[in-house]
Amino acid sequence: MTIGRRTWAIAEGWIPARSTGPEPEMLSHETVCLLNAGDTEAHVRIMVYYTDREPSGPYELTVAPRRTLHQRFNDLDDPEPIPKATNYASTIVSDVPIVVQHTRLDSRQAENALVTTIAFSE
Amino acid sequence: MTIGRRTWAIAEGWIPARSTGPEPEMLSHETVCLLNAGDTEAHVRIMVYYTDREPSGPYELTVAPRRTLHQRFNDLDDPEPIPKATNYASTIVSDVPIVVQHTRLDSRQAENALVTTIAFSE
Amino acid sequence: MTIGRRTWAIAEGWIPARSTGPEPEMLSHETVCLLNAGDTEAHVRIMVYYTDREPSGPYELTVAPRRTLHQRFNDLDDPEPIPKATNYASTIVSDVPIVVQHTRLDSRQAENALVTTIAFSE
Amino acid sequence: MTIGRRTWAIAEGWIPARSTGPEPEMLSHETVCLLNAGDTEAHVRIMVYYTDREPSGPYELTVAPRRTLHQRFNDLDDPEPIPKATNYASTIVSDVPIVVQHTRLDSRQAENALVTTIAFSE
Repeated sequence: MTIGRRTWAIAEGWIPARSTGPEPEMLSHETVCLLNAGDTEAHVRIMVYYTDREPSGPYELTVAPRRTLHQRFNDLDDPEPIPKATNYASTIVSDVPIVVQHTRLDSRQAENALVTTIAFSE
Repeated sequence: MTIGRRTWAIAEGWIPARSTGPEPEMLSHETVCLLNAGDTEAHVRIMVYYTDREPSGPYELTVAPRRTLHQRFNDLDDPEPIPKATNYASTIVSDVPIVVQHTRLDSRQAENALVTTIAFSE
Repeated sequence: MTIGRRTWAIAEGWIPARSTGPEPEMLSHETVCLLNAGDTEAHVRIMVYYTDREPSGPYELTVAPRRTLHQRFNDLDDPEPIPKATNYASTIVSDVPIVVQHTRLDSRQAENALVTTIAFSE
Repeated sequence: MTIGRRTWAIAEGWIPARSTGPEPEMLSHETVCLLNAGDTEAHVRIMVYYTDREPSGPYELTVAPRRTLHQRFNDLDDPEPIPKATNYASTIVSDVPIVVQHTRLDSRQAENALVTTIAFSE
């Protein structure tokens, strides 16, 4: 089936610099969850925006047809890694409709905290 | 009253493999909350998408008129259960308008963490 | 200013039966946050939907012009209180545009967990 | 690129009066995350609404082109600071399209809790 939009944004971004618990599961992380429910491969370009410098990117991802990709921002490194403990935001543009959701696991303290929200789309 | 849409998606999905505290209340779980505020029975079909295999489903649910159903993904087993500690995503299609919200209780550590978001609709 | 819509829904609802910490601040609760940014009084009617019985309500609230009301579901009692540890959902209908957001504080365990989402509107 | 809308609202607002852990990182706070992905400076005006008094503001912010600003409500002080442990809500109006997301870190207890949601837009 086809569901979603091609242009998305997440205004919040912040990868905690510290973690508690076994990695990789309990490593503090921010994730962009991409769902491509359609029958065509999705080519996705992520731009990362900062407070006081020009944006970096595009970070290029491919999501196969009828697949989901849960991409940790921690693991993006081309063209450059995202610094820890730094405010950022992102835009996600795909050539076919996808659905985008944002999550963070924060394990700076002994007990983890989680957030999630469907991203903004238009 | 009639409120909602017929096509929904949740890009995030991950059932923790471990739990802390008394079951079933504190069992780590992911839930899809369905509200059918209308006067007609809703027939709902959920498809579950993975990272590296074809989707499974449809999982078929019925929501009676003027009722809510909070369905744990943990408990879906026809055509097959959803594996723990595995990334997934889902689409939810109904034959009448419904409202869909996604929640997770994560009790891997001693203190539980919760997330929620209204799902994406179109 | 005028912002918002007149018909809203929250598919998730569940008031924890237990709490940890000083009341009323750390009492486990679910809240519907209503913003009436306009210059006309908002008359709001909430219906509460259950899994296995007919809905209850309307619960009637008034939000003055240029005011916000953060109403705990715990405190609704006319026509009847909402039972604890019970799945429910809700619709919120206003005669003027408002904005609705849903939050829960869960203090069943020693450390509190929080969720929030903007409600579904149409 | 241009993404977003010019009128936003957050119905929930509450800055915890207590915190646990090193400041400023673990200070209990509420934040409005603004993304201006476009090529024109965004002039943003925030109004803050209360339960039982007239709104305060506008609080004026500027977001440079291709930048994100994560503004803590705790730090707004012109025309007046926002009181702690007090229910509020907010509207955010920009002269160019932006994306707005709301987050709270609550460190009243030893382990922090987090929430986030994309704000309401129209």
